[in-house]
Amino acid sequence: MFDKTYYEVSLKKVRIEDEFWSRYVKLIETVAIPYQWDALNNRIEDAEPSYCTQNFKIAGGEHSGSFHGFVFQDTDLSKWLEAIAYMLEIHPNEQWEKIADEAIELIEKAQQESGYLNTYFTIKEPGAKWTNLRECHELYTAGHLIEAATAYYKATGKDKILKVVCKLADHIDETFGIEEGKIHGYDGHQEIELALVKLYEVTGEIRYLNLSQYFIDARGTEPYYFDIESEKRGYTKHFEDDFMYKKDYNQTHLPVRQQTEAVGHAVRAVYMYSAMADLASKMKDQELLETCKTLWNNIITKKLYITGSIGSTSYGEAFTFDYDLPNDTNYSETCASIGLIFFAHRMLKIEANATYADEMERALYNTVLSGMSLDGKSFFYVNPLEVWPEACEHSPIKAHVKAARQKWFGCACCPPNVARLLMSIGAYIYTVSENEIYTHLYISGRVDVELQGHKIGLIQKSNYPWSGVINFEVEVEATKQFSLALRIPGWCKSHTVMVNNKPVQVSIKRGYAFINREWENHDTITLELMMPIELMQANPRVRENAGKVAIQRGPMIYCLEEADNVPNLSTITLSSEFDLTASYNENLLSGIVEIKGTGYTVDEAESNSLLYNSYQLKEKPIEIKAVPYCMWGNREHGEMLTWIRYK
Amino acid sequence: MFDKTYYEVSLKKVRIEDEFWSRYVKLIETVAIPYQWDALNNRIEDAEPSYCTQNFKIAGGEHSGSFHGFVFQDTDLSKWLEAIAYMLEIHPNEQWEKIADEAIELIEKAQQESGYLNTYFTIKEPGAKWTNLRECHELYTAGHLIEAATAYYKATGKDKILKVVCKLADHIDETFGIEEGKIHGYDGHQEIELALVKLYEVTGEIRYLNLSQYFIDARGTEPYYFDIESEKRGYTKHFEDDFMYKKDYNQTHLPVRQQTEAVGHAVRAVYMYSAMADLASKMKDQELLETCKTLWNNIITKKLYITGSIGSTSYGEAFTFDYDLPNDTNYSETCASIGLIFFAHRMLKIEANATYADEMERALYNTVLSGMSLDGKSFFYVNPLEVWPEACEHSPIKAHVKAARQKWFGCACCPPNVARLLMSIGAYIYTVSENEIYTHLYISGRVDVELQGHKIGLIQKSNYPWSGVINFEVEVEATKQFSLALRIPGWCKSHTVMVNNKPVQVSIKRGYAFINREWENHDTITLELMMPIELMQANPRVRENAGKVAIQRGPMIYCLEEADNVPNLSTITLSSEFDLTASYNENLLSGIVEIKGTGYTVDEAESNSLLYNSYQLKEKPIEIKAVPYCMWGNREHGEMLTWIRYK
Repeated sequence: MFDKTYYEVSLKKVRIEDEFWSRYVKLIETVAIPYQWDALNNRIEDAEPSYCTQNFKIAGGEHSGSFHGFVFQDTDLSKWLEAIAYMLEIHPNEQWEKIADEAIELIEKAQQESGYLNTYFTIKEPGAKWTNLRECHELYTAGHLIEAATAYYKATGKDKILKVVCKLADHIDETFGIEEGKIHGYDGHQEIELALVKLYEVTGEIRYLNLSQYFIDARGTEPYYFDIESEKRGYTKHFEDDFMYKKDYNQTHLPVRQQTEAVGHAVRAVYMYSAMADLASKMKDQELLETCKTLWNNIITKKLYITGSIGSTSYGEAFTFDYDLPNDTNYSETCASIGLIFFAHRMLKIEANATYADEMERALYNTVLSGMSLDGKSFFYVNPLEVWPEACEHSPIKAHVKAARQKWFGCACCPPNVARLLMSIGAYIYTVSENEIYTHLYISGRVDVELQGHKIGLIQKSNYPWSGVINFEVEVEATKQFSLALRIPGWCKSHTVMVNNKPVQVSIKRGYAFINREWENHDTITLELMMPIELMQANPRVRENAGKVAIQRGPMIYCLEEADNVPNLSTITLSSEFDLTASYNENLLSGIVEIKGTGYTVDEAESNSLLYNSYQLKEKPIEIKAVPYCMWGNREHGEMLTWIRYK
Repeated sequence: MFDKTYYEVSLKKVRIEDEFWSRYVKLIETVAIPYQWDALNNRIEDAEPSYCTQNFKIAGGEHSGSFHGFVFQDTDLSKWLEAIAYMLEIHPNEQWEKIADEAIELIEKAQQESGYLNTYFTIKEPGAKWTNLRECHELYTAGHLIEAATAYYKATGKDKILKVVCKLADHIDETFGIEEGKIHGYDGHQEIELALVKLYEVTGEIRYLNLSQYFIDARGTEPYYFDIESEKRGYTKHFEDDFMYKKDYNQTHLPVRQQTEAVGHAVRAVYMYSAMADLASKMKDQELLETCKTLWNNIITKKLYITGSIGSTSYGEAFTFDYDLPNDTNYSETCASIGLIFFAHRMLKIEANATYADEMERALYNTVLSGMSLDGKSFFYVNPLEVWPEACEHSPIKAHVKAARQKWFGCACCPPNVARLLMSIGAYIYTVSENEIYTHLYISGRVDVELQGHKIGLIQKSNYPWSGVINFEVEVEATKQFSLALRIPGWCKSHTVMVNNKPVQVSIKRGYAFINREWENHDTITLELMMPIELMQANPRVRENAGKVAIQRGPMIYCLEEADNVPNLSTITLSSEFDLTASYNENLLSGIVEIKGTGYTVDEAESNSLLYNSYQLKEKPIEIKAVPYCMWGNREHGEMLTWIRYK
């Protein structure tokens, strides 16, 4: 472990020119970022108002008025600012840089002399700062601002917002820690831990890394801090929800290093695991790395939806227990899948193991993309695998499930989270070590890196995810020996590699095909990943999916929508008698590979209106059509089904 | 409609001597009634204390102290007293009559001068009487006491408790009504409506019937009473639950006669429908009868579990919407099925139509019996059709589902409700009209009736529900022409009738086989109901049961239990390749017909620990065993499954 160092490639060095992804990135730039800016300024009709920038204006003394929104409302602006930073890093844009600079002015003005920065407490409860860490998200809010600041500094070189967050981080460092006189607490919603690592990376200031480590190691220890602060403030509560007071909800049930199961609020969990992976890497902390691996394995072998989402219940937006994966009452928050990607990406920088990239890809292509509509203007917070719209309206246990994406949310964590991830997706494609380039995601474009002092360009070209044929071209100034490591996805059972159009034998290590040779300029590599339609089954311990299959092709999970099929999707059975076929349809859902075939449905003509009857087979063949899960809900609203009965 | 009058046969005239039922009746007499008396007096170890009799002692000035328990705690004593009344009606018992008389003394002492009687308000909020009808169950509590009193009077002829409730009813009559100066309100939990009809039947006092009708017809009208009273008391609340303030929760969303769908709290609904049926019958109210039929049909064609339970959600213990019948998150309260039986029984007295008796039988043999353990000492409030014990502990949407019966409940409506129904089951077997005897339930024993002045005895003998062969013997003093109408259950597809051992042709009307003849003493009838194992399917609109069957034999729904099968029941598939066989096993669960056969399960040896895999058939044959649903959970605790996959 820690035998090698794997580096991320900075966003500036990655260019995306990809049929599938360029559309999304452009959507974030041209629609989502402007749209979200309007939302932050309460300019979206028929949507819940955000009040976010207004709160900053009031806190900064520019406006008068009262605070509106959640206690963590500031983070919507931070996540938006982070997204715009990534945009500016890729495509400089004066107009938006000016708007971002104005937003930064607002933020700077809202900072207090001490360094403290949080509009809720500044406006509404100035005397109650740091008194309710369990519920009030102050450190979480600080963390998102720090993330935004480091991104903005890296993109533009301007340090105004960086100075603001350093002052804030210094204030936090003076306030929290094991030393006497400091608060021995930690955050109720993890986030600052990973943000402080980023701040350390940008500033080189080791105090920030140590503070992050303090927060991780103080968590869940005895005496139990959240009870101490509760008692001290007279047991007041900010939220009514009782789950807030369950220890596993915010992963304080055990000291972090003793945790072996993913529990509680899913976003909190994966944000923390991401920071733990960061710290393990920076500190070469073997024990913490083992904890990360144990938690990772618990998620992916027992608590992960096939769409890469996590959080089986809306109660606390949380994990439940092993193999409990209901399809229609789940939470599967978009943000939680984004956090899972953060976790995976950090693990990849410790160990180049395709399991991390596989799950990163699964979450990205399915749940994260499902989180946003094809027009970039509406969002899912919750990502069910099965939807019966009438039940969402009338069944209390499905009330959190929406059959249509929403324009904005009172608690709007997901839309700007999608924006910041997709705007920075270039940073997730490659990592490099001393003389290896790892390709984790198949996204067309170009990357420029330096290996042992040699400049190397790698051009990637494919129709992924619709096709498994991926072409690479190497650009070197002079012949150079190094390895290209190409991920062979877990879903792929057969692949071929050609170099300069000649088949080559490659060795597979931890899920990567290694091609080590003296590369010459314009050498080409063709990787072909066989991408047949696969019918997937769940582990039999997942009771919900007994007797059912999910359709997968490449990284894409497919689903049935009412728009393409019969109204009652539960009547459909797929059968081994019939083959499914895949074909590209440029006119459907911005251009997709659709999957068609024959299945069975109930012959309604033979059914009667009784609720219960003696069994009789009354099925008839029916043509079925499946579309990528991530695209569902972009047409008329209706039912959706991912796990389909099979015989 | 109302062309005939159908009379109930009084409990005294029915003797039960039945292998199956005598055990239950005896259990109520010898275990449940004494046990519940101990519970009412806080004498059950490890069970939630009731405080019920103590509250009466305090209200009556006999003890000092404060009120404990729910606002409707008094009803536990009332339902117990009703059960004991039925017991005394069948089997006089000095010891228990003395205890009951002492309980009646307690109740009498707790009554106030005005007639008011409710220990909660008397002890705890004497100034707040009748100010929160929506939440505080005062009329509901009065109703249960009235029911108990009429039963006790009929059983013993003693009128002390009858006088108490007449005084209470008179007080309510003076307090409520459309007349100026009276409260224009009605109860938040229906019950008094059906109780007042019983009081009318016993006393002949028409004011009680009119008061019942007032409550029904005032309900749901504008101006909306519950809002008026809310405003008047300054919007205080008794319960925190928000559903309490939804109009459909207590069926006040529309005037009663305009209601067409069963909505809201299931027990409230069916208690109200029962009163409506009573009133329709007594008042010859055609419109109200049509409303009853519409609501009945909505339940049985769209909202009924195959086990005869109702209430698809724990949120408000309520109906949800058509065809929403989840098996593992449902409520299916024991009391709601008891209420459905009340409703059915009343409809049978208006129209002898086997649909009512069919559903009465379904609810009785499955959910009601499931409500109590075989030893009579523990109870289910919630009756799921599928249980995964780990999920009951860890999944928030299943927290209300218990994998084992409980000893007692803080809100203990179900145990004494089961007791009073089973103690009076004799009254549900027969109805008579001018010269017809209808047999609705097949329970061995004897009934004595008078038709047109002739005394007739009918002896019934069978091994029902395990066998469909039912023998009758007629006893007449002289030859007499009349009809025996024997229900041909909806589940029965083939039957034969013999009179004096010779096959006869019978006409079937509304589900009853009519045998009209000059009966002579000792004439015999043999009804054979073919009772094969049936695999049942649900209407395809019930999404939860797609591709699944339930096993039924006669009136009994069967289930799989972990105790008899593999641990993960969801891995089991039944198949048309294999037959199931039924055989009596005297050593299992107090003696049952068990069902055995072959199915398939997953070959675990071939499964791996991955969460998702490409589909491959890896099944192996397995011997399965099913037991009657009502008996589940009487051995070691484990999984249970009613709807089983089928291919």
